[in-house]
Amino acid sequence: MKVTCPAPINKYDTVTLAHGGGGKLSDRLIHDLFIRELGNAWLNKAHDGAVLEMNGKIAFSTDSFVVNPLFFPGGNIGDLAVNGTVNDLVCCGAIPEFLSLGLIIEEGLKMDDLRRIILTIKNAAINAKVKIVTGDTKVVEKGKGDKIFINTSGVGTIPEGIFISPERCSPGDAVIITGNIADHGISILSSREGLSFESTIKSDTAPLNGLAEILYQVTKDVHVLRDPTRGGVASALNEISKSSGYGILLEEKMISVSDQVKGACEIMGFDPLYIANEGKLLIILPEKHARDVLRAIRRHPLGKDASIIGRVNEGPPVVKIITLVGSTRIVDMISGEQLPRIC
Amino acid sequence: MKVTCPAPINKYDTVTLAHGGGGKLSDRLIHDLFIRELGNAWLNKAHDGAVLEMNGKIAFSTDSFVVNPLFFPGGNIGDLAVNGTVNDLVCCGAIPEFLSLGLIIEEGLKMDDLRRIILTIKNAAINAKVKIVTGDTKVVEKGKGDKIFINTSGVGTIPEGIFISPERCSPGDAVIITGNIADHGISILSSREGLSFESTIKSDTAPLNGLAEILYQVTKDVHVLRDPTRGGVASALNEISKSSGYGILLEEKMISVSDQVKGACEIMGFDPLYIANEGKLLIILPEKHARDVLRAIRRHPLGKDASIIGRVNEGPPVVKIITLVGSTRIVDMISGEQLPRIC
Repeated sequence: MKVTCPAPINKYDTVTLAHGGGGKLSDRLIHDLFIRELGNAWLNKAHDGAVLEMNGKIAFSTDSFVVNPLFFPGGNIGDLAVNGTVNDLVCCGAIPEFLSLGLIIEEGLKMDDLRRIILTIKNAAINAKVKIVTGDTKVVEKGKGDKIFINTSGVGTIPEGIFISPERCSPGDAVIITGNIADHGISILSSREGLSFESTIKSDTAPLNGLAEILYQVTKDVHVLRDPTRGGVASALNEISKSSGYGILLEEKMISVSDQVKGACEIMGFDPLYIANEGKLLIILPEKHARDVLRAIRRHPLGKDASIIGRVNEGPPVVKIITLVGSTRIVDMISGEQLPRIC
Repeated sequence: MKVTCPAPINKYDTVTLAHGGGGKLSDRLIHDLFIRELGNAWLNKAHDGAVLEMNGKIAFSTDSFVVNPLFFPGGNIGDLAVNGTVNDLVCCGAIPEFLSLGLIIEEGLKMDDLRRIILTIKNAAINAKVKIVTGDTKVVEKGKGDKIFINTSGVGTIPEGIFISPERCSPGDAVIITGNIADHGISILSSREGLSFESTIKSDTAPLNGLAEILYQVTKDVHVLRDPTRGGVASALNEISKSSGYGILLEEKMISVSDQVKGACEIMGFDPLYIANEGKLLIILPEKHARDVLRAIRRHPLGKDASIIGRVNEGPPVVKIITLVGSTRIVDMISGEQLPRIC
């Protein structure tokens, strides 16, 4: 009946500034794409925020994603954004429950790309058992952004008896990693222009709450959880070592890297210890639980290559590694930037 | 002792890609600026997220800020980002408690500008009585962003007996606005290049939780709260009307606009009803409480120009206005974009 209505969003090939203006076109984009695909009892209200029933201790986390390229082998910015915040909540000891979704879109983004990203977000949220309950969309002029940046924030409840914190890292603890390292970073690098390898290296982006659930079935006596993203295993362990005041000694022979990733790192001169992962969990817990935990998580598809890669010692707060040739070297925190826009 | 350390952040005039790389420089930026200025028990942990004690019903909201210019009369992107999410939580009926801070910085941002924004955020958080408990920083290459984009997400608790939701808007309700409209949007426009007026029009950016507190002291029988930002009072009331299925009739003579803003709107051909506010609250509640609420909030500095601007009627779900000359016209939702990057 209304003849003044703007065309539905499927008439648009690209996102325009008007899609972010707060008027009819914004409303269409929100309803015809975001709510249609991501809708649930909370998001459908399209209110300023979501009202949630939660109890006791909650974890709250935020992460912005600026990965370039948007689409890469194994995933895209959409599942990276969902899994990234899910994993941050897991690393606080929480069961991830609710996410927010903040989009900053550059004018001219292909509507098909946006749709593909939203569908990926939808599936990633289902897969990670979280609900996207509130969101926000802004559009900036061409040349003032880079296609799309996504912020996800999340909340989750922390079950009774779980106390995860980097300061809890203690001498005698074992350090477990749930699989091969450096897949995500090398996947992004190799999908960037001018850097292609013969075989496709896939990002490991995945939600880690399933692994955490299995872990807690074995023991709640877990000291630290960390997903080694930007800066890789080396940076994550350096931060933990600094927070706790204790040292960490790694064994290189226990750290598995796929042959493809190893080859790519050699060609490009990267150390896989510093390369981002997006679906691996570092678990630091008393040695006495380490074997049982390892056995349990190896039965999960995301944990099948898990191994104990090191131990926490009395200090000083330095991360060292026993190399393949038996010498020991310091694994320092990375200085400056290695790989920009990896997540 | 360490000679390999990068220079402290005060040696840098601008943000570099390495400040976002997850290594030593990122660490410096986080500790020397963000934690030093914004620090508290939660943020100081520099963990993946914050662990919070909360009970029962909570509100969760997110908003990204891409305002251009970053600095404008009355505020900057920093207080806008804090107040914006505080106000979204208020509009869910919550007492805002905790915020996250996600920064997407363009390489080359002046370190002084970043510092100024962070200090503004600090003061805005103190003023709004919220704690910034978790954060994330990404840096993108020059030309792939626009100086800085800020996402704030927030959580707050909803007190017993408060049920705020647009669907609760009911026939017989009064519509109150807590002051002059259109200040923020016109302030941004007039501070953009090529559009300057003789007098400075200041943004009204402010946290609205103080006003909400006063409101609840009078009555908890409040149906809808909304801060009319992008799209202004007209878009906010259209959304509420659509959600509830009822009509709203406004009286133009009751809606106050400052002379400066009125003049600017006339020159530029804007209708102040569609212009963004960042420190005004729309309150929709049963008529019987309206006078008492008005009296109470007028005693607060942010509510001194409050007035009852309309009433809710049986429908259809259309917003109409009785103009100054006594005729009635429809106030439709804005079509397309009026003012990009206003917040």
